[in-house]
Amino acid sequence: MPASRDLAPVFAHIDQNADRIVADLQELCRQPSISTAHVGIEEMAALVKRRLERTGFQAALHRTQGHPIVTGIHPGAGKKTLLFYNHYDVQPAEPLSEWTSPPFEARVVDGYVIARGSTDNKGNIISRLAAFEALLAVRGELPCDVKYLIEGEEEIGSPSLETFIPAHKELLAADGCVWEDTFREDVPVLDLGNKGLLYLELTCRTANVDFHSSNGQIYENAAWRLVWALNTMKDENENVKVEGFFDDVAPLTAKEEELLERIPPYAGEERKRRFALRRFVLDLPDAGLPRRHLTVPSFNIAGFDAGYTGEGVKTIVSGRARAKLDFRLVVNQDPAKITACIRRHLDKHGFADVGVRMLFRSYPAKSDPESDLVRACERASRHLYEKDAVINPFGVGGTPTWMVIRELGMPLVSTGVGYVTARTHSANENLKVEHLIEGAKYMAAICEEFAAH
Amino acid sequence: MPASRDLAPVFAHIDQNADRIVADLQELCRQPSISTAHVGIEEMAALVKRRLERTGFQAALHRTQGHPIVTGIHPGAGKKTLLFYNHYDVQPAEPLSEWTSPPFEARVVDGYVIARGSTDNKGNIISRLAAFEALLAVRGELPCDVKYLIEGEEEIGSPSLETFIPAHKELLAADGCVWEDTFREDVPVLDLGNKGLLYLELTCRTANVDFHSSNGQIYENAAWRLVWALNTMKDENENVKVEGFFDDVAPLTAKEEELLERIPPYAGEERKRRFALRRFVLDLPDAGLPRRHLTVPSFNIAGFDAGYTGEGVKTIVSGRARAKLDFRLVVNQDPAKITACIRRHLDKHGFADVGVRMLFRSYPAKSDPESDLVRACERASRHLYEKDAVINPFGVGGTPTWMVIRELGMPLVSTGVGYVTARTHSANENLKVEHLIEGAKYMAAICEEFAAH
Repeated sequence: MPASRDLAPVFAHIDQNADRIVADLQELCRQPSISTAHVGIEEMAALVKRRLERTGFQAALHRTQGHPIVTGIHPGAGKKTLLFYNHYDVQPAEPLSEWTSPPFEARVVDGYVIARGSTDNKGNIISRLAAFEALLAVRGELPCDVKYLIEGEEEIGSPSLETFIPAHKELLAADGCVWEDTFREDVPVLDLGNKGLLYLELTCRTANVDFHSSNGQIYENAAWRLVWALNTMKDENENVKVEGFFDDVAPLTAKEEELLERIPPYAGEERKRRFALRRFVLDLPDAGLPRRHLTVPSFNIAGFDAGYTGEGVKTIVSGRARAKLDFRLVVNQDPAKITACIRRHLDKHGFADVGVRMLFRSYPAKSDPESDLVRACERASRHLYEKDAVINPFGVGGTPTWMVIRELGMPLVSTGVGYVTARTHSANENLKVEHLIEGAKYMAAICEEFAAH
Repeated sequence: MPASRDLAPVFAHIDQNADRIVADLQELCRQPSISTAHVGIEEMAALVKRRLERTGFQAALHRTQGHPIVTGIHPGAGKKTLLFYNHYDVQPAEPLSEWTSPPFEARVVDGYVIARGSTDNKGNIISRLAAFEALLAVRGELPCDVKYLIEGEEEIGSPSLETFIPAHKELLAADGCVWEDTFREDVPVLDLGNKGLLYLELTCRTANVDFHSSNGQIYENAAWRLVWALNTMKDENENVKVEGFFDDVAPLTAKEEELLERIPPYAGEERKRRFALRRFVLDLPDAGLPRRHLTVPSFNIAGFDAGYTGEGVKTIVSGRARAKLDFRLVVNQDPAKITACIRRHLDKHGFADVGVRMLFRSYPAKSDPESDLVRACERASRHLYEKDAVINPFGVGGTPTWMVIRELGMPLVSTGVGYVTARTHSANENLKVEHLIEGAKYMAAICEEFAAH
């Protein structure tokens, strides 16, 4: 196992080129690329491809049923290959009136780049390219083969990526993947996967009309039926009573247990105050919150709608009721199997008439916290920040890392330049120039550490 | 007990004056009197007062916090006094485009008066006045003292009447009350009261925000809490589990049981087809429907609203949920006591945080089916239609007959010129001229029969 080489000249090169790196970020941010509205997508995909080529990548633009996907390959020394993932699309900029400078002007104010996409996710694209460019400039080579996958539909659920990845396994094959950023605190956060999401719509229809409620004694009320059906599924102590729901939940490994112990308690009192919380579920103490939050699947009513929901008095027996259920799944729960459990449960409890429709599903995935890649990130963090990275073995979000972890079978870490004050998805999204430059060094160190061990 | 006198000359007089009676109805209908929009109310109240005076009543216009109430007294022979109730306000005429002739023109088309208010309730006002006028013209006197109470807020819940009645007990004192019309089938229907209505809003607030549903494991979901709370109140076999809910339900009398037995089974199959009903509650057979419908209080969810209720996918933990509950109460259930039962029940079952707010209440009331007044109406029906009236001892609607039955302590019958095809509250409301004329004779016969026994 070779020791990693000195990164000081690489870091110095990054510092010397800081103005150009910021200008590169501005260039990307000035091209709008709003996936929901399909604004600037083609231009942005072409720009990303040219930008990869400028760094020396052999790049390709792949047509999909949706927005183009851009890939790039750059050979390096050593035997390993590292895959990077980012997305070039952004959220809409609205409400425009709340921006202090135009969202696609990318003005630099007091050391911050203010722009839609500055952090999410163009800052990450540039920090990585800046790292590769510095390594190439100083050493004439990358420490390992690098592949880059940049999609344009992350903000709308990555539908094209889901078919693209299994169809391009060879093109994307690597020894590990550095995914999108997570939100940094004062040290890097390593997020090792994501939860799955299953979204079901339950509908109950007892009649084709709403009746005058003077008939409430003789006509079935769809709202009541759905209340009763839901009540059989989870009780007031948060016990999920659907048979088979937990069957496939994977036990935690010793390493995961250890990492879980290291996660600090949540600041319960502060959250209670801020959100006027009645309580946490089950009156959990602060120290019990992270474990439940990170490792337990959720069974959530995202919406319930029946009868008259306006102000004041209207008296009807509702012939229709609808509930939206949202399940955050953990490894190895399968959305289709869970849906089947719900269907069986309803049938078994006398609610065969309640319809179940799947509106969305994504899979849970977690990545080995003891992989080479995690170790490389940990060392890179220590090297650069002189602090241990925070390792979160159970990502709570819905970003589709499962497409890489499950389909390509490689370890994955989400880490990057995001920061809690970056206002991603909001007006005045920004990236601190200092974090961009630090992030470029961090990426160079990850490449170096990953290749060297 | 004097035998009733011959009504033939009175009926003949009504027939001879049919054109004038129709013109009288047109006069009232041409004055709009929309209570919701406060349109034409003052003009209508004045017109009603003048109209009573023209018939020979000593009339008065009473100011209230809302719309004026008009009363009238006319002395008669004998010792009894009969009180008549009607209202001069009407529903809005919208949607105007659906009317085949202007709603306040009161055009006569093919033997029907087409106008907003023609049946509900101006046709009833005129049929009664026509009866009094015929009796006076033929005999020079009424068979009993007659009082008339005409309010202008029936279509908006009769708020002023509720304080007016207890404050004018002497003015309104009588031996019985003929209330507003019910819908006639081929014979008169006698409706002997109304159910009460209690309308509660239950609110659950677990936080001051909706959370991203990736927090569904640790934050309380208000929708779940309200589902669980409601489930404790009524089970899937329609058993109400709120302690005290049935405490004050009065047992049926032998006479009521007898009348109940005479009510024909509902046409279950036809309703199932028409409304695409899954079933009737408890799979009740046709013969079991009237009893449950008429005599059992309801416990209805009129609306439920929490979280995201639009189309498609949105993932939130709802911090707020709201249910609207609507209870149709039977004698002697008290809205305030029922509200207290609900409050106690929630507290006892761990839902002290669920708020309960009363948005509306009216009282149940029923009238003795063996009273003089009912017998007079039965005889009047036989006399005029040669058929027995249908007696419904348990009105299912919310019309406030309780204000008379409970506050003035007199027997009450709802009966009149309404008919199932009259389209009350809809476009092209109408009254068949034949029903108006028949109705005038029916009212004359009721006065006569009531006075004579």
